[in-house]
Amino acid sequence: MSTPKQTQPATDRTVKEPTLGLADLPLRPELQGAEPYGAPQLDVAIRLNVNENPYPAPAAMSAELGEAAAAEAAHLNRYPDREARALRADLANYLNRTNPGIVPLNADNIWVANGSNEVMTHLLQAFGGPGRSLLLFPPTYSMYPEYARNTHTGVVTAPRAADFSIDLEAARQAIAAEQPAVVMIASPNNPTGTATDPEVLAALVEAAPGMVIVDEAYAEFARQGTPSALELLADHPRLVVTRTMSKAFGFAGGRLGYLAASPAVVDACRIVRLPYHLSALSQLAARVALRHTDALLEKVDALRSERDRLTDWLRGRGYEVAESDANFVYFGTFDDRHAVFSGLLERGVLIRETGPDRWLRVSAGTAEEMAGFRQAMDSVARDLGLPQAVAADQTNAQEASR
Amino acid sequence: MSTPKQTQPATDRTVKEPTLGLADLPLRPELQGAEPYGAPQLDVAIRLNVNENPYPAPAAMSAELGEAAAAEAAHLNRYPDREARALRADLANYLNRTNPGIVPLNADNIWVANGSNEVMTHLLQAFGGPGRSLLLFPPTYSMYPEYARNTHTGVVTAPRAADFSIDLEAARQAIAAEQPAVVMIASPNNPTGTATDPEVLAALVEAAPGMVIVDEAYAEFARQGTPSALELLADHPRLVVTRTMSKAFGFAGGRLGYLAASPAVVDACRIVRLPYHLSALSQLAARVALRHTDALLEKVDALRSERDRLTDWLRGRGYEVAESDANFVYFGTFDDRHAVFSGLLERGVLIRETGPDRWLRVSAGTAEEMAGFRQAMDSVARDLGLPQAVAADQTNAQEASR
Repeated sequence: MSTPKQTQPATDRTVKEPTLGLADLPLRPELQGAEPYGAPQLDVAIRLNVNENPYPAPAAMSAELGEAAAAEAAHLNRYPDREARALRADLANYLNRTNPGIVPLNADNIWVANGSNEVMTHLLQAFGGPGRSLLLFPPTYSMYPEYARNTHTGVVTAPRAADFSIDLEAARQAIAAEQPAVVMIASPNNPTGTATDPEVLAALVEAAPGMVIVDEAYAEFARQGTPSALELLADHPRLVVTRTMSKAFGFAGGRLGYLAASPAVVDACRIVRLPYHLSALSQLAARVALRHTDALLEKVDALRSERDRLTDWLRGRGYEVAESDANFVYFGTFDDRHAVFSGLLERGVLIRETGPDRWLRVSAGTAEEMAGFRQAMDSVARDLGLPQAVAADQTNAQEASR
Repeated sequence: MSTPKQTQPATDRTVKEPTLGLADLPLRPELQGAEPYGAPQLDVAIRLNVNENPYPAPAAMSAELGEAAAAEAAHLNRYPDREARALRADLANYLNRTNPGIVPLNADNIWVANGSNEVMTHLLQAFGGPGRSLLLFPPTYSMYPEYARNTHTGVVTAPRAADFSIDLEAARQAIAAEQPAVVMIASPNNPTGTATDPEVLAALVEAAPGMVIVDEAYAEFARQGTPSALELLADHPRLVVTRTMSKAFGFAGGRLGYLAASPAVVDACRIVRLPYHLSALSQLAARVALRHTDALLEKVDALRSERDRLTDWLRGRGYEVAESDANFVYFGTFDDRHAVFSGLLERGVLIRETGPDRWLRVSAGTAEEMAGFRQAMDSVARDLGLPQAVAADQTNAQEASR
């Protein structure tokens, strides 16, 4: 390890020594110069940058959460249920109910943690780590390499096709060459919105020597006819499907991710998890939200409609839009996407610059937010002289002449 | 990596394949055969096994938490503050107020996570890891080796003296020989209750080439005159003091650990933390609890008194008791501690078998719980024919003849 610099004795008696920076501490070499991950948290009128659900919890859910939290407070002096059995049973019931085609799951098939990023970390701690590698299919979720870095797992990649679908032949070759301990596929993919065909997923499980994780963070937003990888679980014990309550349940602030898999996978996670990793309040709040599934899924339907309307509108304007089964769309292409991003931000609309450099990602929001985005987008197109500005002027003129 | 066994095609269409166990999955070799960590969670009348605070939250705090959670529910669709700035400021204020001798801390000096075990993991991810080692002083908290295992950090040890204090000369020799990247000292120590002198801690920081972490999970229970390592922070930028709200704040179910250190240490943790690791509800609930600090610390005073009374009683019975600055005492010695543990459990009192095999740990509880423990302990001593049974009979006879 590197030897830290000798620090001077403090003279001004302040803990915040201006002369001591991160470079003076014996940080691991691979972390030196790294920045904390995260999208800008800016206070703008229309936030469409982190695929949040724009709808607040129903009033009945808020009231129930308040009552439950007040009652739970009397027990907070005790450690929470380390196994979160009741919540895991509720999640199994939820998956069974919303995926009637699957072989029924129970609590033994479910693992839970503080967000699906902690679930992924547990999986990489158990099945990845030093000397092992993780196969990714970029462009994909930008946190995956951070999970790998934090668990000392190597990263290898296989390309996607031009439409962002997985190129099965390239994937098979990468698996044969790299023998990855873990294969990770976001489906629907982030930032592109692309769902992966279950037959492709099944072929990857067959080809892979280790675990295959399908990240279904956005599964509830899938279009009619797009199946979930949950259907494959019964026949593929090395397959893991991860989910989150952040998106469909509008529960990003509650931090609740989970997985469905064979009980042996859950047992592996139980070995590496920190005891009491999930607070009593997190367990309680997630269970309250699950009792309001029907009301929350109505909002998911609304967001799916807005996503489809947004796709149609962008295509009508002449933009290229990737097929999306998520609550966001990936569109382009731009010679200077940052100019578009900045133009929108100046107009109070925050979207996301991520993935290939000619594309932008925008979350589906409320009807009002989408109207604001469309108006800002047309204005930006005019200002920047984008080809789409012509289409916009024509459409606007037609609308005005009606 | 190991190649998983070929699994048979599912025939009975159930996800829970009886033939597929953890041994059939490509688990990391060092985890094979490991068991999930955790004390037994048994439903008995008197639970004195995990150093929980026996006092439920004050009614005013419960009500306030309920109201705050209900209000927060309306924003749970948004991600939480990734930096938890407000909570970190509150924690700095708390430390400043309860440690008037220290150079004042602010939010930049504080990092927070889901329990101090996640704080420790962040520290080991940043400063430990493959090729680096962690120096421990056993007997000490049994989770430390698990943090090391999960972060691929090696473990080296230095012995404690017979009274469980740190042997500074042995520690210096271990540091010189092993060059540990991280030194971790629980003070007060768990399971022994032993506080470490700040001069010894300062000497360890001077001797250590890397970071020194002092785990002050039980600091609020220290006896009058036992100083906190917080006093050393201003002069020792490689020192980190960790704390938890689990014990003094009766907030074990809320899962809130934190550290105080130079801002550069906090920056290191920010690099390795998963984004949004701490839920909005966790941040909110901790802030509510901090507003009730005075009421909660009154219970800490009560527990300190019970701890001292317990120590005196055990010594009066002829047991050996380690000096304790925590909310538990470590006592012995027994030829067969398991017989004592089991005898107590049969009488509805759950304590803990941990650390050196002739000792037992018992948490300080309410006056009623302590009376129950004393009665059960005397009964067990009689049943087992422990030497202390004679002392008990004499005392009881004296009391009866009054």
